[in-house]
Amino acid sequence: MRAVRVHTYGEPPRVDDIPEPTIRGPLDILVEVAAAGLCRTDLHIIEGQWAEKSGVELPYVIGHENAGRVREVGSAVTNVAPGDQIILHPLVTCGLCLPCRRGVDQHCENSRFPGIDSDGGMAELLLTSARSAVKLPPELDPVDVAALADAGLTAYHAVTKALPLLYPGSSCVVIGVGGLGHIGVQCLAATTATTVIVVERNADALELAGTYGAVHLVPADGEQVRRVLELTGGAGAHVVLDFVGEQGTEAEGLAMTRRAGSYFVIGYGGKVEIPTIDLIATERSVIGNLVGTYPELHELIRLAADGHVRLRTEVFGLDDVNHAIEELESGRLRGRAVLVPRRG
Amino acid sequence: MRAVRVHTYGEPPRVDDIPEPTIRGPLDILVEVAAAGLCRTDLHIIEGQWAEKSGVELPYVIGHENAGRVREVGSAVTNVAPGDQIILHPLVTCGLCLPCRRGVDQHCENSRFPGIDSDGGMAELLLTSARSAVKLPPELDPVDVAALADAGLTAYHAVTKALPLLYPGSSCVVIGVGGLGHIGVQCLAATTATTVIVVERNADALELAGTYGAVHLVPADGEQVRRVLELTGGAGAHVVLDFVGEQGTEAEGLAMTRRAGSYFVIGYGGKVEIPTIDLIATERSVIGNLVGTYPELHELIRLAADGHVRLRTEVFGLDDVNHAIEELESGRLRGRAVLVPRRG
Amino acid sequence: MRAVRVHTYGEPPRVDDIPEPTIRGPLDILVEVAAAGLCRTDLHIIEGQWAEKSGVELPYVIGHENAGRVREVGSAVTNVAPGDQIILHPLVTCGLCLPCRRGVDQHCENSRFPGIDSDGGMAELLLTSARSAVKLPPELDPVDVAALADAGLTAYHAVTKALPLLYPGSSCVVIGVGGLGHIGVQCLAATTATTVIVVERNADALELAGTYGAVHLVPADGEQVRRVLELTGGAGAHVVLDFVGEQGTEAEGLAMTRRAGSYFVIGYGGKVEIPTIDLIATERSVIGNLVGTYPELHELIRLAADGHVRLRTEVFGLDDVNHAIEELESGRLRGRAVLVPRRG
Amino acid sequence: MRAVRVHTYGEPPRVDDIPEPTIRGPLDILVEVAAAGLCRTDLHIIEGQWAEKSGVELPYVIGHENAGRVREVGSAVTNVAPGDQIILHPLVTCGLCLPCRRGVDQHCENSRFPGIDSDGGMAELLLTSARSAVKLPPELDPVDVAALADAGLTAYHAVTKALPLLYPGSSCVVIGVGGLGHIGVQCLAATTATTVIVVERNADALELAGTYGAVHLVPADGEQVRRVLELTGGAGAHVVLDFVGEQGTEAEGLAMTRRAGSYFVIGYGGKVEIPTIDLIATERSVIGNLVGTYPELHELIRLAADGHVRLRTEVFGLDDVNHAIEELESGRLRGRAVLVPRRG
Repeated sequence: MRAVRVHTYGEPPRVDDIPEPTIRGPLDILVEVAAAGLCRTDLHIIEGQWAEKSGVELPYVIGHENAGRVREVGSAVTNVAPGDQIILHPLVTCGLCLPCRRGVDQHCENSRFPGIDSDGGMAELLLTSARSAVKLPPELDPVDVAALADAGLTAYHAVTKALPLLYPGSSCVVIGVGGLGHIGVQCLAATTATTVIVVERNADALELAGTYGAVHLVPADGEQVRRVLELTGGAGAHVVLDFVGEQGTEAEGLAMTRRAGSYFVIGYGGKVEIPTIDLIATERSVIGNLVGTYPELHELIRLAADGHVRLRTEVFGLDDVNHAIEELESGRLRGRAVLVPRRG
Repeated sequence: MRAVRVHTYGEPPRVDDIPEPTIRGPLDILVEVAAAGLCRTDLHIIEGQWAEKSGVELPYVIGHENAGRVREVGSAVTNVAPGDQIILHPLVTCGLCLPCRRGVDQHCENSRFPGIDSDGGMAELLLTSARSAVKLPPELDPVDVAALADAGLTAYHAVTKALPLLYPGSSCVVIGVGGLGHIGVQCLAATTATTVIVVERNADALELAGTYGAVHLVPADGEQVRRVLELTGGAGAHVVLDFVGEQGTEAEGLAMTRRAGSYFVIGYGGKVEIPTIDLIATERSVIGNLVGTYPELHELIRLAADGHVRLRTEVFGLDDVNHAIEELESGRLRGRAVLVPRRG
Repeated sequence: MRAVRVHTYGEPPRVDDIPEPTIRGPLDILVEVAAAGLCRTDLHIIEGQWAEKSGVELPYVIGHENAGRVREVGSAVTNVAPGDQIILHPLVTCGLCLPCRRGVDQHCENSRFPGIDSDGGMAELLLTSARSAVKLPPELDPVDVAALADAGLTAYHAVTKALPLLYPGSSCVVIGVGGLGHIGVQCLAATTATTVIVVERNADALELAGTYGAVHLVPADGEQVRRVLELTGGAGAHVVLDFVGEQGTEAEGLAMTRRAGSYFVIGYGGKVEIPTIDLIATERSVIGNLVGTYPELHELIRLAADGHVRLRTEVFGLDDVNHAIEELESGRLRGRAVLVPRRG
Repeated sequence: MRAVRVHTYGEPPRVDDIPEPTIRGPLDILVEVAAAGLCRTDLHIIEGQWAEKSGVELPYVIGHENAGRVREVGSAVTNVAPGDQIILHPLVTCGLCLPCRRGVDQHCENSRFPGIDSDGGMAELLLTSARSAVKLPPELDPVDVAALADAGLTAYHAVTKALPLLYPGSSCVVIGVGGLGHIGVQCLAATTATTVIVVERNADALELAGTYGAVHLVPADGEQVRRVLELTGGAGAHVVLDFVGEQGTEAEGLAMTRRAGSYFVIGYGGKVEIPTIDLIATERSVIGNLVGTYPELHELIRLAADGHVRLRTEVFGLDDVNHAIEELESGRLRGRAVLVPRRG
């Protein structure tokens, strides 16, 4: 089968012909990949930033955001059957450790992450676990929703954690409405009546956010902290969701957070620095966020099926992977790039 | 009446003879102070560190941790009557703003803080609000419990916020078992079955913590992070309550916090610094904490009345205030210093 | 001033000329009533059903659902000023008992209920407390929102309690979409992405519910339990909000509630009967609901101001009170009857 | 192997010699049973009360409360190994349905219940799932803790659900301190500072409850409602845990429940009957409870290992099963009967 593999860090991946994977364990499933999202993390992998962390041996197949069709299942699989259309939770979890038993899949003590530390889904076939599969309702096309698997799930997870803080009359700042943030805004609109304030550098993305339910659109032009304070009567927002997490948004996000409010870190690359007196005098919290749980992916798919969440995607063939990468790197891409292995 | 007043920042306060305060508003109460706790914040006030923040005019009466007996009440007071023994929530709150109506007194939009920004309770009489008064059950002596008003309430509030995380089998690190921390340990023992690990520099205080319910006693000798990781199977603790918040405990506390765990900042003076990738990769949270609510003071008094919380106090006359201050500054004090105005 | 008073139970109330009430306590406010909602509870009062419970002396002024304009305030009032447009939380609470301090106003230990146990708001002026006043934003007209004060607040409170159960993919049955239920449906649509299933006898009301965000409309024609089970894959709904609470909806509501689900009782008149084995074998809960808190009324007003909640009202002059009562009793009324004292 | 089997409903079970079960699925484990608790449900099974519900074919092995030693594991088992001492969650769950993925094992959509609807653990060997196994720490003997598997877990689950309501100063009534209730009292003492009030018919059991942490001991002599109201200042308790659920405790439990409080149903056999007006006027809740989750069993084992929970057990050989049954039926048994298959 054809698959996108990294051979040498720092060089573009290649589309190789490799043997098809086969079912080995009782909970394995073999999936015909319909769509594989391309993500900034893939760029970082190719650059070699994850080399040490993942410890993966080259060459290997990247791609960690997938939807497709079940081809074959292991002996103990009962939740999906060959032919089912599915989307895949990005982690393969053990199901037996305490975090798995508590339902917090992202903290499984024995997980692997296909596309990061083992062969992933930019390929015709992906070997993964039945525990990762969420069935798609017939009204959803795998190509349209693949990017919900990781980008969408991460945004939804953060919104879900913030829900108890977002009562009517509250305000919620979303910093950055790219791949994750634009889903975050839609999730907020679907599940809360909070006043959404979007802060974003790109004028197009900012305008688009208005159509997703954002009430106030604030350009990230240097005046964004002042503007958010103005819009919130000087107090700041009850919740700030920072989908950037670098280049100054860390300090700005905290400055936009109201007394007794919470600053949610989702994007990364930068550093949170805050004197302890500033944390306690205002009783604010800084909340880390990581992917999401399996039930949360199920819930997000319901939001998509009910028309609450739409993704902007640009479709590429598997052979065009390096063109897609260039488009993402150059900033020319509008929405999420999705590779479609079976289109040619 | 006699009262401890700051006249010039940087100089010891003096015990002055000043006019007695009088009831002005319908919710005012006039309290015969039985005991006034002495706290590090008082030292900082005397040094002038709070001068700008509080904006208070000198001279004024310090003391923000009080218990006593109601002498007189305003026209609209229904919850206490002259003669009642009471302990005082440190803030005077409006009762009408939204934070007050949600029960989060410490975020009242119109509060004042006697002893910080207006005349306080190191005096024979204190003018405060009926909204601050919690009645003492007969088994509690105001002198014994006065330090629960602020130090105790702050510790209890943080423990209460952490409760949902502290299921049996979890572990909770308490950094610093001085005035606040030793109450924190007792609150944990009374309201959870978590495994309490205490980290403390002072050998006496550390040993004492063992009698309050701490299971593991770790000296803060430079090896404390390694020791806590050892005691938690390499994973770190589910919750870290940092009652110090400076001099390196910020980084150490974070290093002791488990994946998906929470680091609670209660002490202050230092700075939290953490790369955003470290927050998200482990999904940890940093939680600011500030005093507590009125119902929480009520609950803490129940814990004391039921014998779950005992305070170590050392009693001084009002005229000995500067001796008490020296004892606190020198580190010779065991437990909390309490001034007793009516003893002479 | 003119006021609607009950003189004898079982007889229609009369519009009397009575002395204007005057400010007595420091937190009192005198309100020029712009609108007073008429409610089934008023009918029950007139019939004498509340005589013993309220212990009120006749004659007295009814009306417990009010909005208007502040004319005068007591000496300690800081949250509103003469001229402010306000809506009134139905209870006058003490602000000093523990339930008040926890923010659960409906459980105040010293409350009174104007219009039930003391003079109410079907009058030109109402004497109440500053603690009951929520300021209206300029975009809301008191006449349009008065019925949110009690009917709306009760519906919103129940929805708010159910929120943690109403994740995307869940389903919520609303039994009865009259005065309260039609607000409940709108609150659900604004603050959740649950699938709303409405069960209602009246065809017009049922159809209207579709325009408020209900997805499935089920006529209460005897087949409603079967239909709800069908619509939920045989499992029942995660939450059932019963705004009727009599004439069989108690058993039907429980039968529509899924394993591990919750049946919320809001309407009353009937009786819940359930074998303990049926409660435990499915681990279901039965949740009582009562009015709501002051912050919840504030939140509901935000929903209205943001266009999420609209009320159907029919306006009557104060002198037409008995005509309005007839319309309500006959079932001819569409929406909520609102008396407007200052129109003549 | 020897096993206790029901052959005909209404007749005593027999100890038969039957073939040993063998591993079939990848997550199966074969357990050498060290101890099997005897429970009132076993009596009901023998009487035939569960015949229709379980649909089990006779003869079959009863016993649903087990601890023991792993003999053999299926191909996909990673959490336990042969030789491990374990206690068993009573349900065998699929691990793939949404309730399993949310961590609420007791609501698994594909569960079976060994000892109820398939061969259970009153036998030398039990075939069950790795998903049911919780490892025992070395300080715990399987014989001493077996009864925690079902009786203990059910009590702990209810206490855990009640925790957020049980702040210091609250009160909690425990109705019935037999097999489940006496564990409930210990769990309350370990994880809360609530005031525990025990209501119990049996004088010995009542007295024993005092040693477990109950503060008030109320004999169920007809005056129990009045006594509980007296002990709670006329208001009733914040939480009532009813481990009986029949013979009048349903109405009494509700009468003991405070305004805004919750009545937890754990025992069964009777019927809850309450007018809807009584539910709403006081905003009380009735909460059904069922077994518990896998993580909860893990937590309970920590409580036992830390000395917070001790069980009273009386040990019988497998051949003495009918003698044990007589002791339980006659009320002569003190504590839980435990069958020890390997003792002879």
